[in-house]
Amino acid sequence: MSADLEKRLADLGLTLPPPIRPLGAYVEALQTGNLLFLTGMLPLSKGSPKYLGRLGAELDAEQGRAAAQLTALNALAIAREYLGSLSRITRVVRHSVMIATQGDFFDQPRVADGASELFRDVFEGELSVRLVYGVASLPLGMPVELEVIFEVA
Amino acid sequence: MSADLEKRLADLGLTLPPPIRPLGAYVEALQTGNLLFLTGMLPLSKGSPKYLGRLGAELDAEQGRAAAQLTALNALAIAREYLGSLSRITRVVRHSVMIATQGDFFDQPRVADGASELFRDVFEGELSVRLVYGVASLPLGMPVELEVIFEVA
Amino acid sequence: MSADLEKRLADLGLTLPPPIRPLGAYVEALQTGNLLFLTGMLPLSKGSPKYLGRLGAELDAEQGRAAAQLTALNALAIAREYLGSLSRITRVVRHSVMIATQGDFFDQPRVADGASELFRDVFEGELSVRLVYGVASLPLGMPVELEVIFEVA
Repeated sequence: MSADLEKRLADLGLTLPPPIRPLGAYVEALQTGNLLFLTGMLPLSKGSPKYLGRLGAELDAEQGRAAAQLTALNALAIAREYLGSLSRITRVVRHSVMIATQGDFFDQPRVADGASELFRDVFEGELSVRLVYGVASLPLGMPVELEVIFEVA
Repeated sequence: MSADLEKRLADLGLTLPPPIRPLGAYVEALQTGNLLFLTGMLPLSKGSPKYLGRLGAELDAEQGRAAAQLTALNALAIAREYLGSLSRITRVVRHSVMIATQGDFFDQPRVADGASELFRDVFEGELSVRLVYGVASLPLGMPVELEVIFEVA
Repeated sequence: MSADLEKRLADLGLTLPPPIRPLGAYVEALQTGNLLFLTGMLPLSKGSPKYLGRLGAELDAEQGRAAAQLTALNALAIAREYLGSLSRITRVVRHSVMIATQGDFFDQPRVADGASELFRDVFEGELSVRLVYGVASLPLGMPVELEVIFEVA
């Protein structure tokens, strides 16, 4: 199945962005055994935040969804670069969507679906487990951060 | 040891609730290798939030403890459904308790113990590692979310 | 490489503190397969919080960095006690730095580097993946909590 991930992306009209570069003493991806752990993915585009602000304040749920989708695309871009090919990914094990909010925003699942539905579409319906929660703030004031653990062949 | 988990639950006077159904593009449990990852468990009962509000505001620590215990029961219910039997669980590897608070509540460990002590009792004293932290908000305004990684035979 | 971790610590002028004792129904470390999971490490020294307060409020980024470094030292102390020797650690897989903030603090990466750079120095430049996010509060009002997953031989 996973050999077709590139084609699947193309069919969905999606293009992976250039992989994000780490800005400190960490790497973006690391494989141990059959698990590929990723650094927290942010809604960065070409090295800059594409979205800034908190859900329920400066941003609404639709903008949050778009930001979450971008974090998932960034995750796939990092995985492809690290593994050499998306075809080595067998599935997403877990993804966690952290959503910056002042606390009066409870529609986190709708925002998280921006990432979850992208993974669902790319992995042809094979679903992973998910954590969703609101956080006080994220680096540089971005609205969404994504944790991902992939399973690799 | 784990073959007796069902009996242990009964001895403790505990009954597992019906397993929660996913409400989006994710599943509630996924095994990779010997690890069983779960979706973030919430204090849901029969599909609805049994507890709503934040610790240190609408809810006190005792209510938080009860909510945390319910998330742990929901975790066991999901694991039993996914694995077919609780006897396949050898132990809890890690559990994380996220607690919704406006920031002026520091007694998170007491709340988290609601889940930790349930696992301790069910697994006959075999303990796991734990993360505890306060978050800005949780889905639908619920007070506690639980991350769990089980080890399975 | 890892056989020299003790020497590396000494060369860096670092001394590991006594291992933290658990205060509830959990343990500080647990190995499953080749992964060593740790309880959330806090900036405790001799059983008491060395740092209290939130980033962007009572504490500035430099104090946060120092607190994050202390959590990383506590992590190594726990790992050494659990494994018997640091030489069994092959690398850090992932570390997550949770930073207590009221939400108006966006320089989380600088704080997180306190832990990341310590791991970099001790593991001679071998880097891990990282999650960084701001949380509403941490146990006892401490400013930083560290999640770590080590890979062990």
